[in-house]
Amino acid sequence: MPELNIAVIGGSRVSQEVCTLSYNVGRILAKYNVVVFCGGLTGVMECVSKGVSEGNGIVVGILPGYDPSEANDYVTIKVPTGMGYMRNFLIIRASQAVISIDGSAGTLSEASFAISEGKDVVSLFELNIPRKKEKEGHVYVEPDPEKAVQMAIELAKNWKWHEENE
Amino acid sequence: MPELNIAVIGGSRVSQEVCTLSYNVGRILAKYNVVVFCGGLTGVMECVSKGVSEGNGIVVGILPGYDPSEANDYVTIKVPTGMGYMRNFLIIRASQAVISIDGSAGTLSEASFAISEGKDVVSLFELNIPRKKEKEGHVYVEPDPEKAVQMAIELAKNWKWHEENE
Amino acid sequence: MPELNIAVIGGSRVSQEVCTLSYNVGRILAKYNVVVFCGGLTGVMECVSKGVSEGNGIVVGILPGYDPSEANDYVTIKVPTGMGYMRNFLIIRASQAVISIDGSAGTLSEASFAISEGKDVVSLFELNIPRKKEKEGHVYVEPDPEKAVQMAIELAKNWKWHEENE
Amino acid sequence: MPELNIAVIGGSRVSQEVCTLSYNVGRILAKYNVVVFCGGLTGVMECVSKGVSEGNGIVVGILPGYDPSEANDYVTIKVPTGMGYMRNFLIIRASQAVISIDGSAGTLSEASFAISEGKDVVSLFELNIPRKKEKEGHVYVEPDPEKAVQMAIELAKNWKWHEENE
Repeated sequence: MPELNIAVIGGSRVSQEVCTLSYNVGRILAKYNVVVFCGGLTGVMECVSKGVSEGNGIVVGILPGYDPSEANDYVTIKVPTGMGYMRNFLIIRASQAVISIDGSAGTLSEASFAISEGKDVVSLFELNIPRKKEKEGHVYVEPDPEKAVQMAIELAKNWKWHEENE
Repeated sequence: MPELNIAVIGGSRVSQEVCTLSYNVGRILAKYNVVVFCGGLTGVMECVSKGVSEGNGIVVGILPGYDPSEANDYVTIKVPTGMGYMRNFLIIRASQAVISIDGSAGTLSEASFAISEGKDVVSLFELNIPRKKEKEGHVYVEPDPEKAVQMAIELAKNWKWHEENE
Repeated sequence: MPELNIAVIGGSRVSQEVCTLSYNVGRILAKYNVVVFCGGLTGVMECVSKGVSEGNGIVVGILPGYDPSEANDYVTIKVPTGMGYMRNFLIIRASQAVISIDGSAGTLSEASFAISEGKDVVSLFELNIPRKKEKEGHVYVEPDPEKAVQMAIELAKNWKWHEENE
Repeated sequence: MPELNIAVIGGSRVSQEVCTLSYNVGRILAKYNVVVFCGGLTGVMECVSKGVSEGNGIVVGILPGYDPSEANDYVTIKVPTGMGYMRNFLIIRASQAVISIDGSAGTLSEASFAISEGKDVVSLFELNIPRKKEKEGHVYVEPDPEKAVQMAIELAKNWKWHEENE
């Protein structure tokens, strides 16, 4: 049974290049048998879901609306929340580490929430997030998908729940 | 790929009899290939998870705390939320129908939230919930686990998202 | 500065009789200088808000949608949440005791959530909620508005946060 | 009755200089009769609350825990949520515009969430948030407290709820 949850976050509209990168991240995550959490919609979410799905992995789509049918075709477990974009933060809560791919304000919001909750973020692109507290997580930039996934898995394994992160 | 989510709700401390009933509900749900959502902890949640797991199904545990290790041993997908008991309502949001087994105030809160969100509840025990609005769901009492699961699956298939349920 | 929060819950469509009762509860709560929390919309929510407002008290409307203008005309502080009916449970989290007036499944869901979170509920009408755990709150039935408010204030004063209620 | 909600966000540990700035922002907001939303704890939250309070305004503290007594001494309306840092996003949901003062990853997370939800942010310090979608809000940098407040009020007045921001 898979024992690690890793979130993949990124924009809902992406170039073909970023889609391919996301797909590859999904394939590699499936190979390592982790459960992938994402927002379940389009763009990075859809491309990574396709990769996980074609690698026979499990991808959980935490959806903003009430209707499971809003999920893309590759999501294994559809989780409607009815919370709108606030569902982003449930994706982070569910995961022990985060992989960030190109995105906009929403993606930055998730990545910086992860840091503030003491979780590490591996970003395939440049990403700057201020970090001021001992308990906060770190950002690592790693453009290679295979290395990024391996790093995220190691970080997820080392993550521990601390009362002060509550 | 499983296309229906069904929630199983019930008390965190249960008699052997109620545990066996919950286990059977889990086995039957696994047989019908639905994704089971529950609170991921003890009592009904653990007994139903064991049934799903031994039937080779998928059970998602929506957890109150921040730590995935608080889940019982049979949960397939562990989803920490950090929302405390408010996570109960995410279990309902994620599902298209609900099976209610014996419980206390928390279980009643989930079942009546389901009704108010327009979702049907199949209860293995007597359950009274006031229903005043057209858009609200119905409670069906069905003590037989096999029949209760079949009924919940039919109700879940007929569930449709309506704007006014928002 | 007011030091107690009390939730008033009830149906969104009410008879004139129940509206008058709700209005009176609001007037009395304002007299005792507590902050009143409600869902901010119609029915009991509007009638109680009018009572608080005309008694020069503060009423906070925790709204289901994104738009503050969905609040009724008597709400002092409008709090859009975008969480739909899940906002009900924020009303309970915000308060130290709850007054329940006639309602449907949604109201029962809030009242039983309060009990499960260790908060007491004073109901103006008959209300049955199973209670199985030491840490759970109690239901008190008191049809007289003045007495119901006084009782809720005493219960709110005695409420204490306990780790195990988390 | 105040008709606008404005959020003030910033770090929980601040220099004397930033505290004074936050206090001044609070005084000015009170003067203009808006309802101020913040996280209700220490640092910027406490300094701005003191300013609002001494200006006889209303400041709502949306708290991470379950206990209203965790609020700082200057909060008018204490709103425990039990959602941990996820309460940050309720502060944004409640407001029509945001004033950002110096902070760490948590503050960046709130500011970028605001942008992604179509709300404008006035920042007293440099703040870079990617913006890719038409519906997203804007960041304005304005170091002068009086001007920053006036700008935030104008932006809040112009904010309108659009379905696509859901």
